[in-house]
Amino acid sequence: MNLRLVVRLLGFLLLAIGLFMAVPALFSWYYGGPDLVAILASSALTMAAGGLLAAFSRSQGELQLRDSFLVVALGWLLASACGALPFILSGAIPSFSDAFFESVSGFTTTGASILVRVEDLPHGLLFWRSLTHWLGGMGIIVLSVAILPLAGVGGTQLYKAEIPGPTLDKIAPRIRQTATTLWQVYILLTAVETLLLLAARMNLHEALCHSFATMATGGFSTRTASIAGFNSLFVEAVVVIFMFLAGMNFTLHYHFLRGRTSVFWKSEEFRLYLGIVVAFTAILAADNLAAGILPAGGALRHSLFQVVSIITTTGFATADFGLWPAAARFVLLFLMFVGGCAGSTGGSIKVVRVLIILKQGMVELRKLLHPRAVIPVRIDGRSVPQDVVVNVLGFLFLYIGILFLSTLALTLMRIDILTAFSAVAASLGNIGPGLGAVGPAANFQHLPLAGKWLLSFCMLAGRLEIYTIIVLFTRDFWK
Amino acid sequence: MNLRLVVRLLGFLLLAIGLFMAVPALFSWYYGGPDLVAILASSALTMAAGGLLAAFSRSQGELQLRDSFLVVALGWLLASACGALPFILSGAIPSFSDAFFESVSGFTTTGASILVRVEDLPHGLLFWRSLTHWLGGMGIIVLSVAILPLAGVGGTQLYKAEIPGPTLDKIAPRIRQTATTLWQVYILLTAVETLLLLAARMNLHEALCHSFATMATGGFSTRTASIAGFNSLFVEAVVVIFMFLAGMNFTLHYHFLRGRTSVFWKSEEFRLYLGIVVAFTAILAADNLAAGILPAGGALRHSLFQVVSIITTTGFATADFGLWPAAARFVLLFLMFVGGCAGSTGGSIKVVRVLIILKQGMVELRKLLHPRAVIPVRIDGRSVPQDVVVNVLGFLFLYIGILFLSTLALTLMRIDILTAFSAVAASLGNIGPGLGAVGPAANFQHLPLAGKWLLSFCMLAGRLEIYTIIVLFTRDFWK
Repeated sequence: MNLRLVVRLLGFLLLAIGLFMAVPALFSWYYGGPDLVAILASSALTMAAGGLLAAFSRSQGELQLRDSFLVVALGWLLASACGALPFILSGAIPSFSDAFFESVSGFTTTGASILVRVEDLPHGLLFWRSLTHWLGGMGIIVLSVAILPLAGVGGTQLYKAEIPGPTLDKIAPRIRQTATTLWQVYILLTAVETLLLLAARMNLHEALCHSFATMATGGFSTRTASIAGFNSLFVEAVVVIFMFLAGMNFTLHYHFLRGRTSVFWKSEEFRLYLGIVVAFTAILAADNLAAGILPAGGALRHSLFQVVSIITTTGFATADFGLWPAAARFVLLFLMFVGGCAGSTGGSIKVVRVLIILKQGMVELRKLLHPRAVIPVRIDGRSVPQDVVVNVLGFLFLYIGILFLSTLALTLMRIDILTAFSAVAASLGNIGPGLGAVGPAANFQHLPLAGKWLLSFCMLAGRLEIYTIIVLFTRDFWK
Repeated sequence: MNLRLVVRLLGFLLLAIGLFMAVPALFSWYYGGPDLVAILASSALTMAAGGLLAAFSRSQGELQLRDSFLVVALGWLLASACGALPFILSGAIPSFSDAFFESVSGFTTTGASILVRVEDLPHGLLFWRSLTHWLGGMGIIVLSVAILPLAGVGGTQLYKAEIPGPTLDKIAPRIRQTATTLWQVYILLTAVETLLLLAARMNLHEALCHSFATMATGGFSTRTASIAGFNSLFVEAVVVIFMFLAGMNFTLHYHFLRGRTSVFWKSEEFRLYLGIVVAFTAILAADNLAAGILPAGGALRHSLFQVVSIITTTGFATADFGLWPAAARFVLLFLMFVGGCAGSTGGSIKVVRVLIILKQGMVELRKLLHPRAVIPVRIDGRSVPQDVVVNVLGFLFLYIGILFLSTLALTLMRIDILTAFSAVAASLGNIGPGLGAVGPAANFQHLPLAGKWLLSFCMLAGRLEIYTIIVLFTRDFWK
């Protein structure tokens, strides 16, 4: 373990977070908000802490695999802790638990909120809240191109070939290059969405906040009613398109922008992603129509929006789907376990893992008739090593294990099954709203303190693909 | 495909079923029930149909793997159809859909019922209903020692070594021997339980009915209130012990009876099974106690009974657990996905598969730190081939796929999520009662017709380990 380097990297991370934290001060100043001092003070505190950490340890040696797990886990934790400062110092969210929940929900791009009325927050804090999403999304891009493929975390190894090598240090230039390229795509898409939202008559503050939340598949809005609060078809259309783009593998966007336009159709993961969106939208719209809850146009419009919002793990809402009929709610609950594509900012289990499970099921059926045949799972024309398939099973076990234990813990706190289960599913999958008492028209404020901390853990574990968090709790790790 | 042999075997099966069907007539005669003629007529009809089929095709050639899938699937289907005859002809259950549901629920050892008041059924029909469980249990034993290991269906291959060979015919003597041995254990345990229940002051009719339902992990009772209707600690104790025994791998019982008493502790599957029962009983009892729903003694007693009843997929009830607190109900819902051990009469996913998933999860964590290491999953000291692990993933996919699609279909019929989901889970896992409107104090009568047929399919698919049913729907099978 190279603890010095770990501490040094964490120091740099906090310096960067502190720097970004100063940006919302511009909006506080412009709108004359009461949160200006708190934001500047938080920014200064975070940078000071980061500076101390960075100065404390000198860089030396290489970063090993297990060091990188530590950097990632502690990085998200520290960022979330410091990110809570503006909420606390301004007095807007006095409880540390609540402020931490809101901050970790931001950095993990979840979007679950303890705020009863979002509009009560001053402009600076609202901007900071959305910015945590966007920074978290940046972190996810690095995580998914750099650390996960090296660690061979299920599904993502499919993209391993692009980044070879056993330690981070040796391939640092390569990672830096890949990350920079993907960040360019991320920033470009954010900029385009912001312009479109400005064209849809949002002001700059709202447009930036919602672009940040969309591209990071976060889900924080500046209004309690979420996207429904804008009551604009134009806004909805822009948001639904960019949520869909944010849920795609960013390398596809990169290749597309470089002129390789056939790249989408060649990706089986993308085709499945698109297929699920189309099929599930049809089911939802039909069910809503049959139940007479929404008119024809509205059924399609709201169903499409909600399906894309949930599968990409964004969590924006244009309607209170908690009031939708049973089938529609069940479909949305199921979608919470699909998630975005690998290499997107979306969370949850990921489309590529669903694809592997699906194909393995088909292979097993064929093997039943030909017990001696060796039939590999093939994706995009390449056969998937059995290691990867087996890794998906391990991932599923950990996912279901955490889901079960956390839901059990919440139900032991006398929370009803649907609320508990969907709250955990929505936290672990980094979606945001669940069903029941944590539905899109409600919030997480009323949960007991222990429940909030548990869900904060779920958000972190889910965001870091479970493995990278759970490994820290193994004895083997600390040897 | 050797269709002639398939038809011949089905003929023999119906002959046997028809013969067994005459047994309940003894109870009709003794109690002077109105169902005597209907039962004898059904028995005659079934034997006639069987005789015709058997005479129609002469045995020749060998039974291939795909033939055996067909025999198993059609066998259960035909048995269930003929088994419905006594209910229909007697007028006790006039609707064919309802009678088929009740019969398939019997032969698949599920125990879900469309009867609003069980006591309304005459003694002969009640006996037949329980006998279908027992015959289904016999079928499962053959299936799990003969057909599944050959087909290499996840988890069960672990026991493959004991029964080698590619076609059924060549190893027929071996299968016959293994099946006979296990049937002896099955019959012995049924006899012992019957004697104990007689000692607990049940009459012969009740004692036999409940022994059949227990050893087959079925769950049909002669009373609407199930085991609670007897209000006897002695009865409960006997039933809970024999449910637990029926959920164990029957080969363990065989070895134990042959004097190898250490065989239980050497089996990791058994240890996990026992561990789950103990841990989940503790959680349930604590939750029930804390919620003040049951007194101290009652909390432990009813919690243990319900945990064993659900994990073994029996479905007997001593309390309406639909009224228990959220955590207790959630735990029971989760247990519906565990099921009995491989080689038991229990259904659902099976403890051995849970064990494989659990161990694979642990292996993946270790591999995260040692990406180049080859670490096999080991069970009972033997390493499990990756093929088997991968097969479990395929099984999970099919299980979850059917669970999702069936729940979706039920919710589209305007059934609430918890009722729909638990009804499918309880049918697919061959448990019986679910939660909500299909809870232990309710029944399946009120479901729409399409829902009953769908759940009948789920019971069959679950009982035959999904693969053996789904493979019939592949194009490859019919080539």
